[in-house]
Amino acid sequence: MPALHHDAPAPAPFHHGVRVYWEDTDAGGVVFYANYLKFFERARTEWLRALGVGQQKLRDETGAIFVVTDTQLRYQQPARLDDLLDVTVLLAELRSASMRLKQQAWCGGRLLCEGDIRIGCVDAGTFRPRRIPNEVTRLLA
Amino acid sequence: MPALHHDAPAPAPFHHGVRVYWEDTDAGGVVFYANYLKFFERARTEWLRALGVGQQKLRDETGAIFVVTDTQLRYQQPARLDDLLDVTVLLAELRSASMRLKQQAWCGGRLLCEGDIRIGCVDAGTFRPRRIPNEVTRLLA
Amino acid sequence: MPALHHDAPAPAPFHHGVRVYWEDTDAGGVVFYANYLKFFERARTEWLRALGVGQQKLRDETGAIFVVTDTQLRYQQPARLDDLLDVTVLLAELRSASMRLKQQAWCGGRLLCEGDIRIGCVDAGTFRPRRIPNEVTRLLA
Amino acid sequence: MPALHHDAPAPAPFHHGVRVYWEDTDAGGVVFYANYLKFFERARTEWLRALGVGQQKLRDETGAIFVVTDTQLRYQQPARLDDLLDVTVLLAELRSASMRLKQQAWCGGRLLCEGDIRIGCVDAGTFRPRRIPNEVTRLLA
Repeated sequence: MPALHHDAPAPAPFHHGVRVYWEDTDAGGVVFYANYLKFFERARTEWLRALGVGQQKLRDETGAIFVVTDTQLRYQQPARLDDLLDVTVLLAELRSASMRLKQQAWCGGRLLCEGDIRIGCVDAGTFRPRRIPNEVTRLLA
Repeated sequence: MPALHHDAPAPAPFHHGVRVYWEDTDAGGVVFYANYLKFFERARTEWLRALGVGQQKLRDETGAIFVVTDTQLRYQQPARLDDLLDVTVLLAELRSASMRLKQQAWCGGRLLCEGDIRIGCVDAGTFRPRRIPNEVTRLLA
Repeated sequence: MPALHHDAPAPAPFHHGVRVYWEDTDAGGVVFYANYLKFFERARTEWLRALGVGQQKLRDETGAIFVVTDTQLRYQQPARLDDLLDVTVLLAELRSASMRLKQQAWCGGRLLCEGDIRIGCVDAGTFRPRRIPNEVTRLLA
Repeated sequence: MPALHHDAPAPAPFHHGVRVYWEDTDAGGVVFYANYLKFFERARTEWLRALGVGQQKLRDETGAIFVVTDTQLRYQQPARLDDLLDVTVLLAELRSASMRLKQQAWCGGRLLCEGDIRIGCVDAGTFRPRRIPNEVTRLLA
């Protein structure tokens, strides 16, 4: 899609490296597909941390935790033991009580898996939806 | 939705019970969301077994294995330690080399999580797509 | 070891069936060794439940939780996808704030793994050791 | 413990950092104990890699894989979400077909867990014990 004008360049995704260990594989000889949800979450956690948001600290100070409400994953290529994956995070949408992220896992130029993840902010005690704390929204925006 | 005519009744889903253990929970005090992919797979495996399809046997005899190619999950309510979940499987679409399943996890009348899972048939050695063996298609149809 | 007198016969172990799914295996084609700790815990949980001890209920009512303090496992034979394991629990020692269990995993007459597990009772909030609640001790003894 | 003579200084352990994510925790609010086996294995894998031993490459070239045959773990203190653990590896004994490692997990000066792990070398196809390939023994010694 060509565009004559674009004031704001597309934001660059955050990158996080994930090594594949025995624990991640299954008897098919490849990474067990459910584990990409773990890899994606590790990358989201490091993305938040890089922005200054520690989740344990957030919970202790505001009572808010993030929970995953929707996941959509497409698996393209398998990864194997000892592979070093490059897992990316891109904030696609930020709302008052939720956000949507686009994530990908790459290995040596091959796209292995991509996903759309929706995260909601809830009260840690009741699991009721609540606004993302202002200081977090400010760091993410 | 009332219907005047329906030659074929909607098929009944397969049910599989899953108990929640410590291993399934996270520090939020609830089942870690990625584990619903495991629960759904256990139910699919038992559904296949009930139809007469053993996956290890299938691999040994035909070289075919099923792999997950797409997952779409919506999380509605959390489950907790000691909960007994009722996990369902419904075959939504059967094609020559893949199938799509609708799955749900319930606990005490509450819908916890539902998902659409696409499964492909591949060669265990090369991971190249291949037709689902005829004897399996016959058992599933 | 012959014995002339034995007033109390050796207690029979508790048995719990565990099916091996894809999630349990690794790229070696067998069950990932760390997962025997999960299988052993599932069996302990069902053993406690069979004796009338629900862990979530115990925590809600007394603030006590059981934590694993020592594990010693010996791996003898591998298990594979679709295997049905027979996991046993035998209470080897019961003390005021801890217990020791002997556990085994079998498949078709083959001993796969055996372990000694020490469990301590702690306060769920502080993780400080505390006495096992009397009603639990009574059920276990 | 002062010593007048020591020809060979005690070898320094290998260190590997492990971050605690949601996936690692359980409803007790702490790291699920079985996961220390995963953390220890990640550290062993990086220790081997640092010595020049890649396990996937080893398997492809020699047909040998390492399997865990005995584990003994003592849990001292819990770890929590976001903690950064320092996991160590020390080769305690090297034999022709097996080795024994001492491992520890630390967090901020607190010892969380320590273990003795015995590893055996087996043929990837038959799981029969075999000698550790010479090039590996040379790198480890």
